[in-house]
Amino acid sequence: MTIKQTLLLALSMGTFWTHAQENLDFSKSRNSINPTVNKDSVHFTIRAPQAQSIKLQGNWMTGQGAVDMQKNAEGIWKYSIATPSPDLYSYHFIVDGVKTTDPNNVYNLRDVASVSSIFFVPGETADYYMVHDVPHGTVAKRWYPSKGLHMDRRITIYTPPGYESSKEKLPVLYLLHGVGGDEEAWSTSGHAPQILDNLIAAGQVKPMIVVMPNGHTNNSAAPGESSKGYYYPEMMTPDVFNGDMETYFPEIISFVEQNYRVRKDKNSRAIAGLSMGGFHSLYISANQANTFGYVGLFSPAIMPPKDAQVAVYQNLDEKLKTQKANGLKLYWVAIGKTDFLYKNVQDYRKKLEELQLPYEYKESEGGHTWSNWRQYLTEFTPLLFK
Amino acid sequence: MTIKQTLLLALSMGTFWTHAQENLDFSKSRNSINPTVNKDSVHFTIRAPQAQSIKLQGNWMTGQGAVDMQKNAEGIWKYSIATPSPDLYSYHFIVDGVKTTDPNNVYNLRDVASVSSIFFVPGETADYYMVHDVPHGTVAKRWYPSKGLHMDRRITIYTPPGYESSKEKLPVLYLLHGVGGDEEAWSTSGHAPQILDNLIAAGQVKPMIVVMPNGHTNNSAAPGESSKGYYYPEMMTPDVFNGDMETYFPEIISFVEQNYRVRKDKNSRAIAGLSMGGFHSLYISANQANTFGYVGLFSPAIMPPKDAQVAVYQNLDEKLKTQKANGLKLYWVAIGKTDFLYKNVQDYRKKLEELQLPYEYKESEGGHTWSNWRQYLTEFTPLLFK
Repeated sequence: MTIKQTLLLALSMGTFWTHAQENLDFSKSRNSINPTVNKDSVHFTIRAPQAQSIKLQGNWMTGQGAVDMQKNAEGIWKYSIATPSPDLYSYHFIVDGVKTTDPNNVYNLRDVASVSSIFFVPGETADYYMVHDVPHGTVAKRWYPSKGLHMDRRITIYTPPGYESSKEKLPVLYLLHGVGGDEEAWSTSGHAPQILDNLIAAGQVKPMIVVMPNGHTNNSAAPGESSKGYYYPEMMTPDVFNGDMETYFPEIISFVEQNYRVRKDKNSRAIAGLSMGGFHSLYISANQANTFGYVGLFSPAIMPPKDAQVAVYQNLDEKLKTQKANGLKLYWVAIGKTDFLYKNVQDYRKKLEELQLPYEYKESEGGHTWSNWRQYLTEFTPLLFK
Repeated sequence: MTIKQTLLLALSMGTFWTHAQENLDFSKSRNSINPTVNKDSVHFTIRAPQAQSIKLQGNWMTGQGAVDMQKNAEGIWKYSIATPSPDLYSYHFIVDGVKTTDPNNVYNLRDVASVSSIFFVPGETADYYMVHDVPHGTVAKRWYPSKGLHMDRRITIYTPPGYESSKEKLPVLYLLHGVGGDEEAWSTSGHAPQILDNLIAAGQVKPMIVVMPNGHTNNSAAPGESSKGYYYPEMMTPDVFNGDMETYFPEIISFVEQNYRVRKDKNSRAIAGLSMGGFHSLYISANQANTFGYVGLFSPAIMPPKDAQVAVYQNLDEKLKTQKANGLKLYWVAIGKTDFLYKNVQDYRKKLEELQLPYEYKESEGGHTWSNWRQYLTEFTPLLFK
């Protein structure tokens, strides 16, 4: 599966379609999305005869760099890179100092308060992130009632292909996002539905339901999807590490087990999360020490505030001992070598070893990135419910 | 190190450190989304000391204009407008000739191959488009098998609040998009789930299932959601007006009636669509002349190609006579006064009058716009299934 490339420079920007008629944009004549992804090179172009400076910044770059694009006589700015390893990449242009998405690329992703343009380099694990002609599961945005939080809360639920027509009871993976995310993050940036569709089709993953809740308990839904309207997304909302997510997580399990055809034994439940969601997964599974057979901590933010008075954060060692004694099928920890939480995770590994709690450990290249979290999901899900 | 200290350390690494660490964007300090919407005025700002010219273009402007923003001594460009009437609005900046979304607004919508920033002016009908603290329905992206088109096809299905826990059989509205749209259009640009949630909560609309298929039969799903990958969205794909949507529409009805708890009588089925989807609704309901009790044509593209050889487009008068004889609860036609299809709709009204087919007619201000289509949906759905 390759992205089709046809390099056309027939940019038609600046042609203003009359505003009174929408959904009818006739002004374009390109046939390919920007950038052009070839086997050996990726080409970025943008037409801007009036601009004095255009820089390109992408998440494949190391350090702080933004590179200068080069303008030709027709006012087209270009930059080419050697094709990076297969993955989903994000980038933006800086046009005379203004950070922008690529006007010739309609595909983008939001990360907290920044929107970036994106492109795929196909191949290897990245092929699992792309849509293929395999049976597809259903992705539903539902709302579950939270008595504890006094609100209905939006939740994303993936049911695998054939769920609706089968009678089989399925296992459940609860999959939690990081501090900058919401109930959409794993299905947009994380490509969880595509990963599950493809791994199930390949016979590598057992059909399972994947439940993706919102981990910010002050919010009922993702930015723009709640009655708060179109606010500016902030990351450090007051609900972070206040114990509410852990305290009220049983409501989510009850909702799922009452509304879906699922198995309700411990070894048919898994919980995993990235960063803050790894922290949540750690404490939820430790506090409900006989609820989850499988735990996955992806780049987890490990330590609660030292002055945490909330019960769910206290006596962790005792809780982990109980969790171990109750039996675990898999306790899986993953971190990138340059992740800013690397040392915290090494400290946590020492604790697990002192407690003789068996765990599997994955150390990858790179940092605290969706590239790693997609990869971890692709490696973690085949280990579940076997 | 506590998590707070770790995060502060990360913050101290500066604005550009984020490349190796994602989902942690600390670089923002704003508390409100751009633009600022006040009762009497809307303010747009963008910081760009190096830019020579920044223009603002918005869909509230008449004609083709873009207005010049004014730069102050700090390099902040500003422009203010009198608050337009309540609605959802789209706009973009033109930075030294480059059309961009607003870097300080994460909310955007795609229309064919253009992405625009958006904002709400609350009040009046627009309040129905916004999320309120009312019971919410479920929005699911599913895939149905099309034998006729030899592919699985993605479809958006709204089920109203309480559907999952009730035993009541519900009526169904099939809601079709225009030539530039796909199975996402009515739930993104159209705000159909919010409109239904709010009108149901207000007791103005009967609980119903809303089925939003993809009307481009060459595509299995919206851009980026199929195995075609991230291609450049084109509007005039070869499937437009080739008869396939009309011919294979019964597969969608069968799928819905086999997979949802729905009433299966004619007066529990409605079909409506905008532009191309109005054309589809007209011909689908005329060809299956005893299937739909309610028909809604929103800014419909009426006329098939003159040389159309496809059976579904032939003998329309006879089919409409049969449809009339079979009985219709409501045949509803709406168009804006400045819509480019205005004359076509007036010609079609003459035909309906010659055939003495009773219909209701709504003429609004404005053109071929989502503003009108959201309004039409808000007026049409209260008329259904009464």
